[in-house]
Formats: sequence, structure tokens, C-alpha cells
Amino acid sequence: MYSYDYLFAFTQSVFEKMGLPADEARQAADILMRAELRNISTHGLVRLPEYVRLWQNKRITVTPKFTVVHETPSTALVDGGKGLGLVTAPKAMKLAIEKAKTAGTGWVAVRNSYHFGIAGYYAMKALEQDMIGIAMTNANPLVAPTFAKNGMLGTNPIAVAVPAGDEPPFVADFATSPVSRGKVDIYESEGKTVPEGLLQDAGGSPTVDPSALRNGGALRTLGGDTDHGGHKGFCLTSIVDIFSAVFSGANFGPTVVPTLGYVKDKAGAEDRGIGHFFGAMRIDAFQPAADFKAGMDEWIRAFRKAEPVPGRERVIIPGDPERESEKRKMTEGIALGSKTVSGLKTLAEMFDLPFEE
Amino acid sequence: MYSYDYLFAFTQSVFEKMGLPADEARQAADILMRAELRNISTHGLVRLPEYVRLWQNKRITVTPKFTVVHETPSTALVDGGKGLGLVTAPKAMKLAIEKAKTAGTGWVAVRNSYHFGIAGYYAMKALEQDMIGIAMTNANPLVAPTFAKNGMLGTNPIAVAVPAGDEPPFVADFATSPVSRGKVDIYESEGKTVPEGLLQDAGGSPTVDPSALRNGGALRTLGGDTDHGGHKGFCLTSIVDIFSAVFSGANFGPTVVPTLGYVKDKAGAEDRGIGHFFGAMRIDAFQPAADFKAGMDEWIRAFRKAEPVPGRERVIIPGDPERESEKRKMTEGIALGSKTVSGLKTLAEMFDLPFEE
Repeated sequence: MYSYDYLFAFTQSVFEKMGLPADEARQAADILMRAELRNISTHGLVRLPEYVRLWQNKRITVTPKFTVVHETPSTALVDGGKGLGLVTAPKAMKLAIEKAKTAGTGWVAVRNSYHFGIAGYYAMKALEQDMIGIAMTNANPLVAPTFAKNGMLGTNPIAVAVPAGDEPPFVADFATSPVSRGKVDIYESEGKTVPEGLLQDAGGSPTVDPSALRNGGALRTLGGDTDHGGHKGFCLTSIVDIFSAVFSGANFGPTVVPTLGYVKDKAGAEDRGIGHFFGAMRIDAFQPAADFKAGMDEWIRAFRKAEPVPGRERVIIPGDPERESEKRKMTEGIALGSKTVSGLKTLAEMFDLPFEE
Repeated sequence: MYSYDYLFAFTQSVFEKMGLPADEARQAADILMRAELRNISTHGLVRLPEYVRLWQNKRITVTPKFTVVHETPSTALVDGGKGLGLVTAPKAMKLAIEKAKTAGTGWVAVRNSYHFGIAGYYAMKALEQDMIGIAMTNANPLVAPTFAKNGMLGTNPIAVAVPAGDEPPFVADFATSPVSRGKVDIYESEGKTVPEGLLQDAGGSPTVDPSALRNGGALRTLGGDTDHGGHKGFCLTSIVDIFSAVFSGANFGPTVVPTLGYVKDKAGAEDRGIGHFFGAMRIDAFQPAADFKAGMDEWIRAFRKAEPVPGRERVIIPGDPERESEKRKMTEGIALGSKTVSGLKTLAEMFDLPFEE
């Protein structure tokens, strides 16, 4: 068990050793630690060695130039200058919030960026301003479109955070694929098969073998086959790709230059990074803020008190489990998986930093 | 087989007999006929008797007042004055487009409205202006949240239309539930069971009996169980409900006063109608229009030429089948199901209009 402060300080030190300025190292550490607190450990410290590898491979710049390429009253296009999303995305979300203050809403597309951590972090930034926050990104091509043989789309997460009044906010933050890559890794490390309908092998045939994803296979879209609405999942993941990458001019779907060693790279592909898309909407852009909050309280309560099916205790409001986890881990401490610990130990040696196992 | 013009004229006449002004009757007919052409017949003329019933039951006003209650440079809240969505929604989408012209994007929430036909109709209106169009609506509570016993959310469709250059546009238009109510009706009328995982009965247990939906059962969310990402489907359908109804102050989720006889009504419920949400984004709000269109062409071609899985011919770009259907039905004519024909015959008698079977 580690304390939040201990892991935060270590993570910030790693980013500083990579060459990030102290305030940006702190910002990047804050995003990863938020994932740990919220029990989204697939996007927490287990990623730190991946970021270091991107830096070692000269895929990213640690002091990137943040350029607003074009703007209108409610929109902007940002070039992230080959920086980590952990550095660029907080500034882009801030810009969306600034736009919303005057225009009612703000929308920022980002290109030339890299992995930004949990989408929910950015969406939740809007809550502090009495705004709805939206964040999405594209990613490594691991998801096969409906009827396609190969992975061509990312697990493309989307997050939407909506403020309430007396109730805590609604925070949805989910990969648009039925499971994340990290979840498939967990099935494999535990020696389990994945549930039917989630994966296909390199030939495009259904499989329950989690290793298929590392061996040329692909994730299915949310819904699975067309009888179960899988084509809607394809639409959803496509929309995130288009908003993140076509709006901005980043690498889209199959042209994303992968950060995962086992995803086939396009030889000589131009690397315009991945793309993100952020939105901020003032709640009082539609109704008086108090009315909006009362309405959202009513919404949350109606679903929270819903009658559960037999064998289940309750209906879960998006954001509830993560908020409960934050509170618990902040006081009780954070447990890390063995893969994460060994990754951090390696980084500690590499950067000559102390790290207690 | 009926001609497009014949059915359009009949439909417009029915709306005129209900008391809609000629131009609004023509507008309403255009939306329903677009659904027929695009082979989304569940939202076509089969709905006409439902609209007439809403009018007979005094649930809707045929000459509603369209009120802009509040606005910012990029947003507006509209009260639809208890009109049909077919009348109110085109005006709201137009307002979103007008806002986008100056602010870069425009976003309009609507309350006090009723069924608006296919969401794709509104999203596609933006294409004519070199804008991305977005439309969504909430609906009758038929979908059970993850772990909930009862239907509390609508099939809540979302449509996103994105212009391209030489390629036809990307048009995604889908109910966020794995299947629509209309699809379940079709399984039932053909004496078939529904695929596993789509439905639950009145007790909350899984069922493949399509009649369950009319007997207190509910649709599952996109993804199905949590192992297959059904909680993400719950998030998605919830987001559409919140954007459509909480933003606007319409009836949300379980408080929607149903238009379907077999959905349990809340006694004494206040009827603020259902809610819609529309968005329009200028493509040149992010990049020069030509660059955006070239990027979208590249996106569409990459997916269209994707290698299919064995046994499938091709990967389908969202909007392709509907566009092909429009072209075909415009020249070859439109076939109507027997339920639709008998509904139209009844309306013809009611309004003393000629109708050839």
C-alpha cells in the first residue's frame, strides 16, 4: 500500500527527470494519480514506462509548443507540438472553458498530441466552472469495424461530466469498445478466456483467447454482432475518431502510428500524433443554473432509487464508484499491481530515484 | 408500390386536415417521406396514425408557439409549445445553424415537443451549409438501465452527419438501444424470437419473447450485460436523455408521459413533452473547409476499402445503405407494409381523403 503523496511525488520526479518543467510535471502526475484514485489503474502508473519509452524513442517532445492554429468565438484548433497529451490536453480543455465563458460553449480540437490519460479528468475540469465537460480521443487501432478483418479504430474513450446541485455530478468516462485493452491484458494475466463476442482473431473469426489481441486480432465494437447492435458501436467509435482526428488533422483510425509494439506500424507513415476533442458548455447557456442543477438532482435521484433486478443491490449512477474509490484510496492508500511496481522500479533505477517496494 | 409524390401528397393532406398550415404540413410530410426513402420505415408513414392519435387526445397543438426562452452566442433554449417535433425540430435545427454562422457552432435544446421522426433528417440539414450536424431526442421509457428492473430510458437516437468532399457524407443515425421498438415488433409479427441478450421480462429476467416489451418488460442497453459493456450503453443512452431533457427542462427518462398505450403512465404526471438537442458546427471552425473535406474523403476511403471478414462483402460506411435506398425508391417506388397501409386507409376514411390501396 502506498500513500497518494508518495506516489504523486515519485511520478512528478520521473516527469521532471524526462525534462518536463516542474509545473507541467506536477500537472501530468496529477492526471495519472487521479486515474489511480478513481480505480482506473489501466490508465494510471502502469502507463508511466510507456510515456518514458515514447520519450526515449523521440516520439514526443517534453517542452512542446502549444499553438492555436485557428479559432472562432466558440472553437479552436490546437497543434500540440508533439507533446504528451498529459501536457497539452489540460491547456486545450482550459481554452474550451475560456471560450464557453463568452460564447456559451467552447470546442477545441487537438492534433499532434499523444496519450492523455483518463478522458474523465478533462471533462471534470468543467464542473468547477458550472459547466458540462466533454472529452474524447482516438488511439491505437485495435477495434475492427463491423464486418472488417483488422483493427482500424482505437478504443476511443468519451467522457461527459454534468454538474448537479446537492447530488454529486454525473461523470461518464468509458472506452467506446466493449472492453479496454487493459481489461483483455488482465484476462490473459489471470489465465482466463474472455467472454464470447468481444474478440476476433487475425483471420477475423470470433475467439475467446485474450492473446489474440497481441497476435494480429482485434476487439469487436460495442454491441458485438449486428443482431446486437454492433454497427451502432462502430458508428460511435467512428464519431470519436472523426471528432478527434479529422476535425484536427491528426492521424485517424488505421493511420495512427501505434505506441504499442505489437500493433503493426505503417512503414514511413507521417506522424501527426493522435487527436483529442474537448467541449465545455455553460449550464446557464440553456437555463438558469439553479434550475439546471435542480433538474439534474431530480434525474440522478430517479435513477439511484430505481428498483434493481433480482440479485443486484442498486442501479449505479455513472461516476459513483469512482468517487467512492477516490475517497477510500486517499485515506487507506493505493495498492499497485506487480507489473506496475516492477515498471516503477525500473524507472527508479534509470533515473536514480529512490523507490520503496 | 407507391410513388414518392403520391405518398408525399397524401401525407401532407393528412397533416393539413389536422390543421397544420400548408408549409408546415409539407415540412412534416418531407420528414416522414425521407424516412421511407431511407428505408427507416419504422419512422415513416407507419407513425402517421400515432401523430393523429396524439392530436385527437389533445396531447399536441397543431399551431404551436415556438419560443426562444434563453440564448447565448452559441446556444438557445426553445419551448416547442406542445407542437409535434416534426414542426418544431426543423426550426430549432435552423436556429442552431444560424448560431453556428457567427459563433462557429450552434447548440439548441428543445422542451415541450413530441416525436420528431428520424434524427438523421436534422443532422443532414447542416450538410447543405458545410457544417457537421448533430441531433438527438429522448423518448418513451422502454430501456432498462444496467441492473434496473424497469424501462426508464428511451431508445434515444443520436445522429451525426459530417460533410466530405468528393465522397458522399458520413451519416450515422441510430437508436442508442441495441434494437429499436419497431425491430422488436417485426420479430413478433413474423413469429420469431429475438436474439438473446436484447430483452428482459417484467421481472427483470432475460427473455427472447418479443411480446415481453408490450407486457411490462424492457430493452437492454447497447452491449447487453456488463461483461459486454452494457454499462457503457447505459451511459450513452443517459447522455442523450440528459442533453435532450435536463438541458431543456422537458420530461426526462422515466417521467416521459408515454405515447404508447402499453407503457405504464404516471398518473397526474406533468407533461412538459419530450426534449431534443441539436448541434451545428462549421467545418471551417477548425480547419480550412477544403482541408477538412479532403481529410474526411481520406477517412471514408480508408474504411470503405478495408478488407472484410470471410463471408462479408464490404465494410459499410454509415449513411451508404440509406443513400442507396433513397436513389432506388425515388425511381422504383415505395412498398408499404400491410400495417402501414391499413393505418393510412383508416386515416383516409377519417379525413375523407382518397387513398388507393
